[in-house]
Parts: sequence; C-alpha cells; structure tokens
Amino acid sequence: MKQYSLIFVFLWTFSSTFCFSQTESSSIKEDFKPSITNQPGKEFPQVNSQGYARFRIEAPQADSVRVSLGLGGRGGTKLTKNEDGVWTGTTEGPMDEGFHYYHLTVDGGTFNDPGSKNYYGSTRWESGIEIPAHDQDFYALKNVPHGHVQQVLFPSPSTGTSRRAFVYTPPGYGKDASKRYPVLYLQHGWGEDETAWSNQGHANLIMDNLIAEGKVEPFIIVMTYGMTNEVKFGGLRDFKVDAFQTVLVDELVPYVDENFRTLADQKHRAMGGLSMGGMETHSITLNKPEVFSRYALLSGGIYTPEELKDSTKPDLIFISAGSKENPDRVTKAVSALKEAGFNAVSYVSEGTAHEFQTWRRSLYELAPILFSNK
Amino acid sequence: MKQYSLIFVFLWTFSSTFCFSQTESSSIKEDFKPSITNQPGKEFPQVNSQGYARFRIEAPQADSVRVSLGLGGRGGTKLTKNEDGVWTGTTEGPMDEGFHYYHLTVDGGTFNDPGSKNYYGSTRWESGIEIPAHDQDFYALKNVPHGHVQQVLFPSPSTGTSRRAFVYTPPGYGKDASKRYPVLYLQHGWGEDETAWSNQGHANLIMDNLIAEGKVEPFIIVMTYGMTNEVKFGGLRDFKVDAFQTVLVDELVPYVDENFRTLADQKHRAMGGLSMGGMETHSITLNKPEVFSRYALLSGGIYTPEELKDSTKPDLIFISAGSKENPDRVTKAVSALKEAGFNAVSYVSEGTAHEFQTWRRSLYELAPILFSNK
Repeated sequence: MKQYSLIFVFLWTFSSTFCFSQTESSSIKEDFKPSITNQPGKEFPQVNSQGYARFRIEAPQADSVRVSLGLGGRGGTKLTKNEDGVWTGTTEGPMDEGFHYYHLTVDGGTFNDPGSKNYYGSTRWESGIEIPAHDQDFYALKNVPHGHVQQVLFPSPSTGTSRRAFVYTPPGYGKDASKRYPVLYLQHGWGEDETAWSNQGHANLIMDNLIAEGKVEPFIIVMTYGMTNEVKFGGLRDFKVDAFQTVLVDELVPYVDENFRTLADQKHRAMGGLSMGGMETHSITLNKPEVFSRYALLSGGIYTPEELKDSTKPDLIFISAGSKENPDRVTKAVSALKEAGFNAVSYVSEGTAHEFQTWRRSLYELAPILFSNK
Repeated sequence: MKQYSLIFVFLWTFSSTFCFSQTESSSIKEDFKPSITNQPGKEFPQVNSQGYARFRIEAPQADSVRVSLGLGGRGGTKLTKNEDGVWTGTTEGPMDEGFHYYHLTVDGGTFNDPGSKNYYGSTRWESGIEIPAHDQDFYALKNVPHGHVQQVLFPSPSTGTSRRAFVYTPPGYGKDASKRYPVLYLQHGWGEDETAWSNQGHANLIMDNLIAEGKVEPFIIVMTYGMTNEVKFGGLRDFKVDAFQTVLVDELVPYVDENFRTLADQKHRAMGGLSMGGMETHSITLNKPEVFSRYALLSGGIYTPEELKDSTKPDLIFISAGSKENPDRVTKAVSALKEAGFNAVSYVSEGTAHEFQTWRRSLYELAPILFSNK
C-alpha cells in the first residue's frame, strides 16, 4: 500500500492562517456584533459586516496578549491593554468569509479565547470564529425538519477498543421503518476529528436545508476519526492508510449496515473527505473499489485516469478546492477524467482557501448529484 | 406557578470546589498518569493513585498561574515557574473521586488548561479533570454493545427556534423496529447544559454496562437545556420554571414520542434531574402529574407527602445526595413519604459532595428500579 507524502497538506493548512479577503477598506464600520460561535452570553469576540474581527480579553497583569488571526504573517493581531487591564484589538483587514480556528498567546502561553466555543483542529481544541458569509443561508439553522446526529461507539477489534463515529440520519428517519438510504462516509482533515463535519462544517444543517427544498434525495452521512494509526501528532510523513482502512471498511461499514437502514451495497455507498480525508478517500477507494462507487476529494488531491484504469469504474468522481488554493489542478484533473470517459465533476469555491467555507460549499454542491445516477 | 429561591443550589455549587477527600497522606506517591479527561496526546494534567492532581502550564512570560482546584479556599493551587518558563504544581491534598471542573488564572485572566478537554459548567466551557474512583468500573467504556446518543433539533414555537436535545437509545434500538421503550427525561444542573449527562455523567456508558449485565430493562433517556428562560447568568433568584415546562412538556415530549419508539404514556415516562434539574423536576412533576409517573431528585431537593396529596400518586420517588451534602434531609424525606404510603427510595453516595460522582452513582442506583414496577 502506498505511503503518501502529505507535505502539501501542511502548506495548505499554514497558508490558510493568513488568508484575508481582497477587499481593501479605508474605514472600519462600527457595526460589530458577537460572533455566532461565541459561548452563550459572551459579548466577545465580535465581527462586523465587512469581515473584521474584534477581540477583548481580560488579563490585567499580563504583559502581552496576541490573537493568532490577523494580517502580516505569523504575528497575528496584537492586542493593547487599557487602564482597566482589558486587552482589545481588531484585525488589520477583513477576513475570509466562514469559519476560522484561532488561539491566544498570553505571556508566551497558548490558550483559548474564553469567549469562544472550541473546535477540534490542529490536534487540539481551538477557539473558533465565524465571519458571516454572503451565502450563509445554506448552512443556517432554519425552521425545517431536522435530521439527527447520532454518536455511535462501534466495536473495533483491530484497535482493541470501541471507536466513536457520528451518523447523520435525515429528517423522518425515525418515522418510516421501511425506508432505506444510501450512505456517504465523510472524513475530516489533518488534526481534526469526527466532530468537525458537524461542528465546523454544519453538514447536518446543509443536508436538512437541501432536503427541505427538495434539492436532494435523503442519504445518511457517517463521520469517524481518521488518524487511526496514532502517529505522533505532526508526523504526517509517517502516515499510512492501512490502519484506518481496516477500521473503516472492515469494522465501521458493517456496523452501520447492521444498525442503520442503509442500502448496503457498493452502488449506494460513497466516500469523501477534506484535505487529509481526501487523501484517505483517494487511497481507500483505489484499494477497495468494490466497497464504494462514488468518490469525493475536497481540497484533498485528484484522481488520474491511469490510477483508475484497473478499478471498477466509479459512478461519480467529485473534486473541489477553494479558488485561493490550486483550482486549476482540480479543473484540469476533471477534464482529463471526462476525456477518459469518467463521470467527473469539479467545483471551485470562489474567494476561499483551505478552510471550512470551501468544504461547506463543496458538500452543498456534491449532495444533490452524489446518488442522482443510481 | 411557584418561584423557587435556588440559593442553596449556589451554596452547594460553591462548596464542591474545595471538597477534598478526608484521607491524609504524609507522602505523595509518584505514580502520576495523564488524566483520562485530557485532550488526545496531552501529558498534563496528571493524577496519582491517591487522588492528587498535578498541573503543568507553559507561559514563560507570565507572573502568576493558579489552578482553581485545591485546598485552602478560593485560592486553589498556586503553580511555580521553573527556569524553562514552565509552571507546575500539585494539589495540597487528594481530591474527591470523580469529575471536577476547574480553570486557570493567568496574570489575572481566566483561561482553560490547554491540556484538558472542556465541559460546559458554570455557564462556560470549563476544564475538567477525572480523579479515578474505586468504583469507576460502572461507567467505564467496555467491550459491550453500546447505545447511541442522538443529537436532535426539535421545533420550539414557544421560544421561536429549533432547540437541541440528546437522546440515548439503548443498544439494539436500530435492529428491532417493533420494540418500544419507556423514557426518562433527565436534566442537568445550574450553569450546565444538555451535554452534561453524557460528557461529565457518562449516562450512556452507565446504561450500556447495566444493560450488558442484565441489571436493567432498556429505556430511552432524553436530555435537554433547562435554563430556557434565558435569565442573565447568575440570576437564579429570578428563575421560573414556566418557560422550560412549556418546552419540555408541550414541545419535546411530543417530538420524542413522534420520532422515537417510546411507550408514550404517563406510566412509562419519568423525569429526573440533578441540582437545579431536580428543582425543575420537582416543580414540573407537581404541575403535570398526568405526564410523568416516576420522579427522581439528585441533590435537588425533596418531596413532602403534603405536596403530593392532591396529585396522581407517582409510581416511584427517588431522592439522593452525596454524604458530604445533607444526606439526613434525603433519608428523612423518604421515610416520611414511605410512612404516607408512597413508593419512595433514598440513596446516599458515600464520600462525595455536590458533584458528578454523586449523580453517576445515583443514576446507577436509579436505573434498575425506575421502571421495574410497570
């Protein structure tokens, strides 16, 4: 089995930290509101209608407080202390629409913002902030029927434990005991875990809204932890897909087919993933073409016709990236696949980088076509 | 509807911060291990076999780092800095078995420990640490069939939004589409939310283990947010149960009965809660005796025969507390209820205070008898 060098995933990840939208603004609008990613009742951090973020941290005896988000490379945004011992600051420019991880550096120590909720990224629980997007409606919490997100603990003999997965079941799943559904296995990126697609990605709300609008036939989504081989965090060059492939294909898929009303065949089973999850998807679908028939790489590499020539022909290949990543690579790969006779679709998210807004939009584009040619 | 003064809840909550076990130890055993509540791969905080906790925080330029856990009142444990700028310290004494919330004070600012997972308590995401308990086996993750914990978003016209609940469905729920189950509505305490009973309480694992041992007939548990009236955090004296009662009885119960295979009658519906959740249980069961038939107060007050004389007679009343709270009040209340002809059961958790170990044990005692006299 191949060992992939994932250095470009690192590059993507680091680059996203200082990606700002191109809009230059001479004045900052004073219409700041608490971020929707704040903890209940917390007034800060705040965001304004232009995409600026403002922070407020109480640490009266501290000498230095920085926020990792900001212009100008790794320095982020330096906060300044007022006479009450409260540190405040605003990003130098507007930020990309969508979700961003961040943390504080307080007198040299790394801490989270006590105002924000936490999200698992970079192999730790990080602070998160949401910059309102012009298209945020598609992942908004609306008054529509909602699916459930089920935490399951499935037996994993290969790793000697019960492992966690989250399973999205569409609205009405509990009502009609005869209906069966296709399944998408959807993976997170490096340093994230099985909570990412729900918490950061709002995969459940994207599906709820698409289903309510009649744009997609309901399907199940399964999300589990993909860094199964427990490499020391950061050692991605040693990453091998074998351990995860065993957990996914030999342990999780049978558990899901036994405990959920799935259409339990290759035709109705898809795999996708973002970033490192895309690389896992690439490896596992090529290793196990008899298990999955629909493949999706979200900022996670490409397929070539040559790689696929000995496989069962997949029913769909979806490849996407943000316009601030390497969109040409995606569109060229899809053109080559089409020329070779594959059902391939590309998607480029405008104005976004290697970040969750790209992947939310990718899922929104993918879902309606994923099982449409059953 | 009555308005309750919940001041004693505050007293209980504050007292739990500096409750230590009575064991005096002349020497600290150097068998410290990472706490099981740590983030993946994090070496600190650590706990030893006696119940001491040791902390390690990197903050090289800080002047002061304290941990809110510790002997000696509000000061907690003061850490000291070594030449590498790393702060370390150990609690002055062993701590109570079980789960504890805590936070850091770094140069006057409140932050979480970057090594620990976070748990919603005190109306914020706090750090948590687990002191291994002599009886931890009953809530351990074991190789047994596991139920699912489903996140649901249910429509709430009274509050104008979709509200979140978690629903524990027992092992095998997805396999036998004909089986129906009784339901326990189980509430968290003040400052916590609907995640508490799973994350801090391990309610799902307690049930999984009891079911695997054949000690309990499977039932469903529903957990939702109980501070519905959105009082400014801390203003518990203004707390009224009305808004929450509407959400629970008029909105959540019908949603659960429609979307899950419940035994949808009063006989098979229980309500319980810890601390403030017990007070809510007390109020709502007295207001709506036609909805629930089994009541459980976990460190959350008592019932008197007088309060119940005009109600439908409940099938079970369960009242518990830690031995470090006011256990006599619990046992006396249950004696009085029994004398008046009620099916009442008391439970006192030995050596624990107003904290989750008391409530884990209470659920473990409650579950086997909750629906046993159907």
